[in-house]
Amino acid sequence: MKLALIGFGTVGQGFVEILRDKGAALRDQYGFAPQLVAVATRSRGSLLLASGLDYDALLTAIAGGHLDQYPDMPGLQRNLSTEALIQQCGAEVLLEAGTTDLQSGQPALDYCYAALDANMHLVLANKGPIALAYNELRERAQAKGKRLLFEGTVMAGTPSLRLALQALAGCTISEAHGIINGTTNYMLTQMEGGMSYSEALAQAQALGYAEADPTADVDGWDAAGKALILAAALFNQKLTFANMTVRGISQISLEDIHAARTAGERWKLIAHLTPSGASVQPMRIPLAHPLAGVSGGTNALTLSTDLLGDVTLIGAGAGRKQTGFALLADVLELHRMKQR
Amino acid sequence: MKLALIGFGTVGQGFVEILRDKGAALRDQYGFAPQLVAVATRSRGSLLLASGLDYDALLTAIAGGHLDQYPDMPGLQRNLSTEALIQQCGAEVLLEAGTTDLQSGQPALDYCYAALDANMHLVLANKGPIALAYNELRERAQAKGKRLLFEGTVMAGTPSLRLALQALAGCTISEAHGIINGTTNYMLTQMEGGMSYSEALAQAQALGYAEADPTADVDGWDAAGKALILAAALFNQKLTFANMTVRGISQISLEDIHAARTAGERWKLIAHLTPSGASVQPMRIPLAHPLAGVSGGTNALTLSTDLLGDVTLIGAGAGRKQTGFALLADVLELHRMKQR
Repeated sequence: MKLALIGFGTVGQGFVEILRDKGAALRDQYGFAPQLVAVATRSRGSLLLASGLDYDALLTAIAGGHLDQYPDMPGLQRNLSTEALIQQCGAEVLLEAGTTDLQSGQPALDYCYAALDANMHLVLANKGPIALAYNELRERAQAKGKRLLFEGTVMAGTPSLRLALQALAGCTISEAHGIINGTTNYMLTQMEGGMSYSEALAQAQALGYAEADPTADVDGWDAAGKALILAAALFNQKLTFANMTVRGISQISLEDIHAARTAGERWKLIAHLTPSGASVQPMRIPLAHPLAGVSGGTNALTLSTDLLGDVTLIGAGAGRKQTGFALLADVLELHRMKQR
Repeated sequence: MKLALIGFGTVGQGFVEILRDKGAALRDQYGFAPQLVAVATRSRGSLLLASGLDYDALLTAIAGGHLDQYPDMPGLQRNLSTEALIQQCGAEVLLEAGTTDLQSGQPALDYCYAALDANMHLVLANKGPIALAYNELRERAQAKGKRLLFEGTVMAGTPSLRLALQALAGCTISEAHGIINGTTNYMLTQMEGGMSYSEALAQAQALGYAEADPTADVDGWDAAGKALILAAALFNQKLTFANMTVRGISQISLEDIHAARTAGERWKLIAHLTPSGASVQPMRIPLAHPLAGVSGGTNALTLSTDLLGDVTLIGAGAGRKQTGFALLADVLELHRMKQR
């Protein structure tokens, strides 16, 4: 199975490391032998080699700062535009792991459409296109007989979508509550331990959880983008930021934390989804609820179902290998489909 | 898809209720239209009708105490032996939801072999055959080109095996920690609240969580049976009770509970699996661990993986619809396979 990768940052590199480290195991266990034939970046060049790029050489080149450092070899094409690369690569699957833009979804969205035109399945770790254009993407993919997979857009590789859409097939999901932003959950956990909001934020930034401009995390927009994706995937519901309540954690004080604790509760930034709407806001959760025990940068999702009651999945919500694995899980699913 | 059901107790009835209540949804959403052609019980008769049994009539008959109360109709055969019913039913799938025997696995194990001889896939909610004879069952099933599915044997319908074997495909699981007996977890939760061991046991019995003879639960044998199944499924490891440490909760006192709490920990009856062995015993779990927050009759499983770190699934571990759903999930998987 020939793959093309757009975006070669943390997630893309994590994925290539997995392909390198697990190549033999994937072949032996699943009969899966992918070839990465193209890699495109925004500002660090692109590569196309129909016979398959070398994983170590790719990782060395990008560690050096630019794909130009990839060694010359017969048939290698360098620095094609991403559009040209999609048209020429001949891959079966486009992996979109570029930078997320939650305003326009671009340029990733156009790359996805171009890949469908070139008869490729779509696997996304990039939240933008799914959050903003899920329905159109899905319709265009269906019209082409192609799959649209995006496990990596919600809880990194922790299989929240596979749980909801596959493992729970036959149940009706009526509601979902999620802790789907690790930065704010880390900060709230630190505040539980007595830290002030600003100390917790500074520590999250020092550890690389929060960016220099922490707005997307602390004001709830990252979680809201994931909530749009969950609303689409679980409830086939086309929401936009404009018709969601989105509140972050910046108004939560140590006094609020203490008051909750006295009542046997804990503040969490909760994405709440039902078939009729979605919200992201801080909520007080009873200590006995599985989400109350989710601490630090960990993510979690509780699905309320008709047959099983509540089912909760807890795991990593970010990380190089963790999100790289989401891409692997999606391409393995495409591989299984082909085999049957 | 024609189905035959052995065992028509809580789980079997839950499954038939689901088929009755969800028939239209299963057809519309998944194109799945199963027919239940045979039901066998140990002491309440059996029925075989090639054109498919009526769900309401079945449930009414068993509620009345015996399948003899099912109305007469052309082609209906009554009170065949289970062996004859398996041979004659013409079903594609045998659903084994009979009584669990963790000493011999019988008579369910022989029914499974007979069903393979009759070219049926196997779906089990009955722990006995999987705990005691997984390898032989799997080999015979493979030799016949048949599937062996048993989601319902570990955490009722909470998809612990689908998570480990399918959603996490591509990860290597190095270790698992599970709370896989709801009765003892309920009792420990009550003891956290100040109840003595004997009070907690009496309450669990009053609520129907624990049986009159609570040995299988409180001494850890129910959890150990599930641990054998997990050892086989996750690590392809053939264990027996004789080579596992199995300890229950009857030695845990309120003083132990208090001492753990003082240290920021909580007692849980933990099944622990690695590729080299398994155990069931009470362990003190740090409060920050997801398993520490699992309270009451709820079950949970934490899988430690190379790519994702720890992934925890929390949900029901018993129940009529909950285990009935496990059977549905397995037959839906067989249906998906056929479609491809």
